[in-house]
Amino acid sequence: MVGMIKIMLRLRTPLCFYSAVSFTARFSHVVFQSPFRPFLVCGSAHFLNPCRKLHIGADGMKSSPDAAPQRLPFSRVTEEDLTFFKKILPGRTITDPDLVEASNVDWLKSVRGSGEVLLRPQTTEEVSQILRYCNSRNLAVNPQGGNTGLVGGSVPVYDEIILSTSLMNNILSFDDISGILTCQAGCVLENLSLYLADRDYIMPLDLGAKGSCQIGGNVATNAGGLRLLRYGSLHGTVLGLEVVLADGRVLDCLATLRKDNTGYDLKQLFIGSEGTLGVITAVSVLCPRKPRSVNVVFLGCETFEQLLKTFQLCRGMLGEILSAFEFLDSECMRLLNTHLKLPNPISDCPFYIVIETSGSDPDHDAQKLHNFLEEAMTSLLVTDGTVATEDAKIKALWSMRERVTEALTHDGFTYKYDISLPVERIYQLVTDMRQHLGNRAKSVVGYGHVGDGNLHLNITTPAKDPAVLAAIEPFVFEWTANFQGSISAEHGLGLKKRNYIYYSKPSQAVALMGNIKAMLDPKGILNPYKTLPDNL
Amino acid sequence: MVGMIKIMLRLRTPLCFYSAVSFTARFSHVVFQSPFRPFLVCGSAHFLNPCRKLHIGADGMKSSPDAAPQRLPFSRVTEEDLTFFKKILPGRTITDPDLVEASNVDWLKSVRGSGEVLLRPQTTEEVSQILRYCNSRNLAVNPQGGNTGLVGGSVPVYDEIILSTSLMNNILSFDDISGILTCQAGCVLENLSLYLADRDYIMPLDLGAKGSCQIGGNVATNAGGLRLLRYGSLHGTVLGLEVVLADGRVLDCLATLRKDNTGYDLKQLFIGSEGTLGVITAVSVLCPRKPRSVNVVFLGCETFEQLLKTFQLCRGMLGEILSAFEFLDSECMRLLNTHLKLPNPISDCPFYIVIETSGSDPDHDAQKLHNFLEEAMTSLLVTDGTVATEDAKIKALWSMRERVTEALTHDGFTYKYDISLPVERIYQLVTDMRQHLGNRAKSVVGYGHVGDGNLHLNITTPAKDPAVLAAIEPFVFEWTANFQGSISAEHGLGLKKRNYIYYSKPSQAVALMGNIKAMLDPKGILNPYKTLPDNL
Repeated sequence: MVGMIKIMLRLRTPLCFYSAVSFTARFSHVVFQSPFRPFLVCGSAHFLNPCRKLHIGADGMKSSPDAAPQRLPFSRVTEEDLTFFKKILPGRTITDPDLVEASNVDWLKSVRGSGEVLLRPQTTEEVSQILRYCNSRNLAVNPQGGNTGLVGGSVPVYDEIILSTSLMNNILSFDDISGILTCQAGCVLENLSLYLADRDYIMPLDLGAKGSCQIGGNVATNAGGLRLLRYGSLHGTVLGLEVVLADGRVLDCLATLRKDNTGYDLKQLFIGSEGTLGVITAVSVLCPRKPRSVNVVFLGCETFEQLLKTFQLCRGMLGEILSAFEFLDSECMRLLNTHLKLPNPISDCPFYIVIETSGSDPDHDAQKLHNFLEEAMTSLLVTDGTVATEDAKIKALWSMRERVTEALTHDGFTYKYDISLPVERIYQLVTDMRQHLGNRAKSVVGYGHVGDGNLHLNITTPAKDPAVLAAIEPFVFEWTANFQGSISAEHGLGLKKRNYIYYSKPSQAVALMGNIKAMLDPKGILNPYKTLPDNL
Repeated sequence: MVGMIKIMLRLRTPLCFYSAVSFTARFSHVVFQSPFRPFLVCGSAHFLNPCRKLHIGADGMKSSPDAAPQRLPFSRVTEEDLTFFKKILPGRTITDPDLVEASNVDWLKSVRGSGEVLLRPQTTEEVSQILRYCNSRNLAVNPQGGNTGLVGGSVPVYDEIILSTSLMNNILSFDDISGILTCQAGCVLENLSLYLADRDYIMPLDLGAKGSCQIGGNVATNAGGLRLLRYGSLHGTVLGLEVVLADGRVLDCLATLRKDNTGYDLKQLFIGSEGTLGVITAVSVLCPRKPRSVNVVFLGCETFEQLLKTFQLCRGMLGEILSAFEFLDSECMRLLNTHLKLPNPISDCPFYIVIETSGSDPDHDAQKLHNFLEEAMTSLLVTDGTVATEDAKIKALWSMRERVTEALTHDGFTYKYDISLPVERIYQLVTDMRQHLGNRAKSVVGYGHVGDGNLHLNITTPAKDPAVLAAIEPFVFEWTANFQGSISAEHGLGLKKRNYIYYSKPSQAVALMGNIKAMLDPKGILNPYKTLPDNL
């Protein structure tokens, strides 16, 4: 450690070292417990703005591509239907509007449905009975997990029946040799993480919303999150799914095997399909061993090119222990300083990097980090930095990255974009947007997951401004499409972005998605108005 | 290093250390170059047995589930068809029987088709023209990559037109920041590895057949191989595909993004579909950094329980540097000694383990290995062992695992099974089979990928023996199904195993596979008689 500290002294501001080593320390949302499911809201007044009533047409936005289409000719719930539901779900068929309310509004409070029935099955068989019935009656269904989605995919648009998986929260098995966990879809991610921590394992994904989001919803939306750089996407780590199809058939693909090449890998269809192809009722997932050592570094760079070179150096020198490489720009830092009074832990720089390492040997990890930092400083890629190995300090450094979203809500009305691009392009979009908007925007900020090529571009204005929106869109989507990017890296399409799909997918592919939807859900009862565009 | 050697002296037979560090050293097949494509054969006479004529019905095996069904009513190739093909593929429409021969016979020489036309497109547009034409004419097509498959999936069954991707072998792009490679489907895996090695990257998969197999075929068969434990399956590492559908439409899902949640992930359908849903023409894949340090350890255990405990210890202590955990039993060692004159590098044990580590720091990796070995010896989990860090010795130790297949071919007629099971069950199948067959079998051996729960169960008899086969099957499949295993972990179903699919997949799932096939290839022209069972 003495050697390491010596090196650190070469930094403009000495790097700060902390002794203890701990794991996980992230921004936690305030959670209000409802009698029925945890509901996650953010402490900011801007975050809790009155609903924008995006899809009821009350604000004259019908012509916008994210406005809801007309209600489709599904049946309406009758007394006979309620009698049936109450018979199969006694005490778990909720119709009290006060109790259904929380399930009608999304986490951002940006969209609101008018569902009148909330069903809370406990078993796959119950889900099967519900869907068989709804399909025969032509009743639309909105499958709902933790309701933490950001694109209006998890709440009803009109009067769809809300099918909540919250009571399907049993862990079914865990194999501590292979690390394969099998559980019902309604298990809350954080509960699974706590269960595994006792057994020396972790979940292969971690999200800010982990206290509320459910594994079934994570899989249905192909959640990315903070560990994707290290452990890869759910398409690789999910080993099996049990899914109830629209007509009530149960599709058992709940394998607990790392390898299985017997026919088409059907479960993949449901990963990221946002509840439009089937209701996921159980999941098996391959879990990594819990790391024994976690370090977090906060660094400053003069240019984005240097930041990218630092990323390359880091991948080479930290190699197998690198678990996150995130960034924020100086505009983000300004908002953190101004609105949240978070002081910059290092000196002012145009760009900041958060690097996390997770490994099995604290000494080796410290040595690798030391070597990397020495090289990064010597070659003038980074100009300042600080290191944390202790829980509270790790949490403090992570909060500089995690609380940007919160800081933005204090800055004004926020236009949010979740863009995936070739990594060398991700900041160019921010500078181009800044130039494009000129003084029409209050702030144009960029942050995100460099390691995954995922930019969170956010633009604020003093108040909602249709003229600015018209300047942003379709500019941002066209720019992204021009560089073969994705207009939704990890948030999905849901209701809000369904009509933008053609910016990232050719019409041939979208048409095939429509064929798959028609094959699996011919009446279209599952999560209507979501994911696929209106013109299909 | 002195400290490490001291510890090693505690072993019954001292572990051998070698100084140099190198990467990749595996069993290489003898490769004969044909004028058209590399064709891979094994040096053993048993391997080159005359064809078993599995599916022409000449040996009266029509009633066996792996025998081919009757020829379906596809059109036969006419002179007009040849005129069309020669016009769009001048000089690359092959009809000389001597030149077509190699594409009609599989690598194991176990199945033989009677295709009369071999087409060798160079571009996606050419593939599109071919399929559009064949679909309109109802001509069946057998897509073919390196033809190294083991289940009769890569050659025609009757007179299907052979569509070879061998000339589609261009690398399209490589991003050395993100490590994302994009290439045509016909690139040979080893060529891609060599290309990447110069750029400090590796492919996320490695196979014994790498000198001949093509990346398109790897993806089409969801190849597993030697790096799956570390880098995961192709469902996670393949980022994009370009696929030509049965009717000639080009499906462009060739994204080069780590994250993209805009609609259903269509490319997943084609990974592992064995050419029955579309012809893969280009692939983008996420490549890991090349490790700077590789070590291989060969250990001996007294029981399989100790071997499993060693695996658990290893995952914990080697953590992020563990890249392979393979095993073979004493029967395998006997065959290696007897038939290939390979001496046991350690003393005789009931079980042997091959562990590989790949990391970014040679000193750290050596230290981790040292700590692990000390613990494994102290707790009496392993009784003997040797370590290699130098290229030739790594290759020699790997050959003890890799050449078991070759040794088996000298032992007699071999019945081969590729089984995936919960890891704690994998050797029980070998002991149960041994007991079940008694003295009817010459050898019953088990080896494979412990880390992936993948057992290669092989049984030999002095000559082919229908009575022994009847004793093995369906016993082996029923046993596997009883423990929720897969009857094909990594080899696929192809022609030979298509009718065994129900042992690992419920009828509901198989029916849905049939629906997908009918949706994408309504005339069934793509690789008929493969993957899906006859009774669909």
